[in-house]
Amino acid sequence: MFSIFDYQMMQRALELAERGIYTTTPNPNVGCVITQDNKIVGEGFHYRAGEPHAEVHALRAARERAAGAIVYVTLEPCSHVGRTPPCSDALIEARVNRVVCAMVDPNPEVSGCGIQCLRDAGIQVDVGLRQVQAEKLNLGFIKVMQTGLPYVQLKLASSLDGRTALSNGQSKWITGTEARADVQKFRAKTGAILSTSKTVLEDDPSLNVRWKLLPVEVQSQYDEASLRQPVRVILDRKCSIPTSSHLFTLPGHIIILTSKNEPSTRNYLISQRERFFEKDNVEVMTISNVEKGLDLNMAMQMLARKGINHIWVEAGATFSGSLLEADLVDELIVYQAPKLMGVDSRGLVNISGFTAMEQVLTFTLTDVHRLGNDIRIRMQRP
Amino acid sequence: MFSIFDYQMMQRALELAERGIYTTTPNPNVGCVITQDNKIVGEGFHYRAGEPHAEVHALRAARERAAGAIVYVTLEPCSHVGRTPPCSDALIEARVNRVVCAMVDPNPEVSGCGIQCLRDAGIQVDVGLRQVQAEKLNLGFIKVMQTGLPYVQLKLASSLDGRTALSNGQSKWITGTEARADVQKFRAKTGAILSTSKTVLEDDPSLNVRWKLLPVEVQSQYDEASLRQPVRVILDRKCSIPTSSHLFTLPGHIIILTSKNEPSTRNYLISQRERFFEKDNVEVMTISNVEKGLDLNMAMQMLARKGINHIWVEAGATFSGSLLEADLVDELIVYQAPKLMGVDSRGLVNISGFTAMEQVLTFTLTDVHRLGNDIRIRMQRP
Repeated sequence: MFSIFDYQMMQRALELAERGIYTTTPNPNVGCVITQDNKIVGEGFHYRAGEPHAEVHALRAARERAAGAIVYVTLEPCSHVGRTPPCSDALIEARVNRVVCAMVDPNPEVSGCGIQCLRDAGIQVDVGLRQVQAEKLNLGFIKVMQTGLPYVQLKLASSLDGRTALSNGQSKWITGTEARADVQKFRAKTGAILSTSKTVLEDDPSLNVRWKLLPVEVQSQYDEASLRQPVRVILDRKCSIPTSSHLFTLPGHIIILTSKNEPSTRNYLISQRERFFEKDNVEVMTISNVEKGLDLNMAMQMLARKGINHIWVEAGATFSGSLLEADLVDELIVYQAPKLMGVDSRGLVNISGFTAMEQVLTFTLTDVHRLGNDIRIRMQRP
Repeated sequence: MFSIFDYQMMQRALELAERGIYTTTPNPNVGCVITQDNKIVGEGFHYRAGEPHAEVHALRAARERAAGAIVYVTLEPCSHVGRTPPCSDALIEARVNRVVCAMVDPNPEVSGCGIQCLRDAGIQVDVGLRQVQAEKLNLGFIKVMQTGLPYVQLKLASSLDGRTALSNGQSKWITGTEARADVQKFRAKTGAILSTSKTVLEDDPSLNVRWKLLPVEVQSQYDEASLRQPVRVILDRKCSIPTSSHLFTLPGHIIILTSKNEPSTRNYLISQRERFFEKDNVEVMTISNVEKGLDLNMAMQMLARKGINHIWVEAGATFSGSLLEADLVDELIVYQAPKLMGVDSRGLVNISGFTAMEQVLTFTLTDVHRLGNDIRIRMQRP
């Protein structure tokens, strides 16, 4: 069904789609290539929500050469009116001959509609070329569409013996500059950075993207002014973080997740919440309590409904353990330094109580990468 | 000084030398290539102690074509009579024209003598081509010659959170079959496998090389019958391991390291030691005590004097910690599984008490390698 040329063109479309990974969220990354007589006559990718889709950019570049052309697109063209008109209509109007999609739309409500529109108009549509690669570009978008939950990456940093701080709390710096720059890239790609009041109170972190720390290849594509800051989400059940915290002084939206039903401290909480409303970049969301604290599943669903489909978590051993136990982590990313910090140092993740090896949390290794004198290990739940 | 052809020939000599890595110990790995008019006329490598050196094999193959030839050899030719006559004499007799050595002999007493003999006979000698690669082939030989101590590799296996067993002791299996097969390769290359009475009492291990578990490329070079078994060394201060232990039933030499001065149990120890003398493959060595137990530095020196220049350590967290604290570990090799075993599980290495990040044991990362769903991390002390 697919020729070598088809593969090459879809590869090009995937590369184009990837150019949007720092900007498109919550929209998907999409790339498009239009060819006529085995030559590229138009290219495009989606850059930012509200701006034209990849197909529109490519059609504009191809102009009249779109008639009778082949269109390679990494995601099924949309058939619904959103902030922009449907791409399937634009492709029909341009009288293209064939559309090759890497994957169907993951939204179960519209999945296949774009393809059907095109076929109804007599256009040949072939689906599934480089689907695995295309899916990797939109993990958050796909996860939310299919489950209502965001794609969650849990970041940890530790020594070789799995320790995150000495017994006195010292932890600066376990990993080196390359590893910390790599973290900035992940932060820049995500929809939100999630942490806890405990981390804010202990470390007073900024939890933003620092353009200066991004790799040169990212800086060359995005200038400092146009860099999108992920939403910072702080889980703060008892509204305990001071408004003087460093993160409030930096640009970017902040969401504080607090408890809806903390009866003993209800009035205190209401007054505490008021403090946050004085800040105009701060939003407070209340979540129900469950046995172990805030209902994390509910919190994730609420964040997804706010358009956050991809979350990068940087928190301590307790919250990391809670997220893992709630099975809310899609990917574990561990930065590990070749150091031994000792058995009296703090552990990586606060989980315990296993009595047989079959019970321990096991991941599938997806990538190991060296960063200076440290390594980055990426894993997924099987 | 060196041509591209020289580089290529020394590379070939290094590849030949490597064929001996499972058999030559305690002798060094050496490879030799002889060329005449830019063509290889003879090759050889050292296979096993007592058998001819690499140069002799190569000269035999080259026959009369050695006259006027260039000889590439990964180690300075010996100038002393050992179990075989000196290679420098053989090269002089064969009337070779030029000798290229990767490195000089690391033995300070004879270093440079072979080269001098050759030069005195009017042969051009060039030294230092691919020296770094040549040194890597003989880490144990070089270490013993220069320091009197063997090259020590400490092997550890752990989960991602640096744990080696659940709180109830369960640990089978943290890592998968690929990682365990990789361990067999390291065991097969080493001069001795060192463990402790604690490990023997807990796990009753064989601590030998199992030919069936070696990779096919190793099996194809060494049949099961000719496979060399490393010496098994058990640190057993109080002579506590039973002679019914599994390791005594397997072929191969065993050394028990016991305490020379354990006053309270002296008579008991003497009677215990007698048990071992009943086994004809068992040797008992007595070592002085120091504050923390046996004098590990002394033990290592004694093993080196017995011709063990390369030791592979597989022991528990306590002994591993003692070796690291005594600064006797040259290389740390950690097999790590992408699992979280929990904060109540057993730690990787029993060291503790650090109060500042500058104090923690830090290594230089030399290699990260994926083995199935596990990774192998190799590190050296800076």
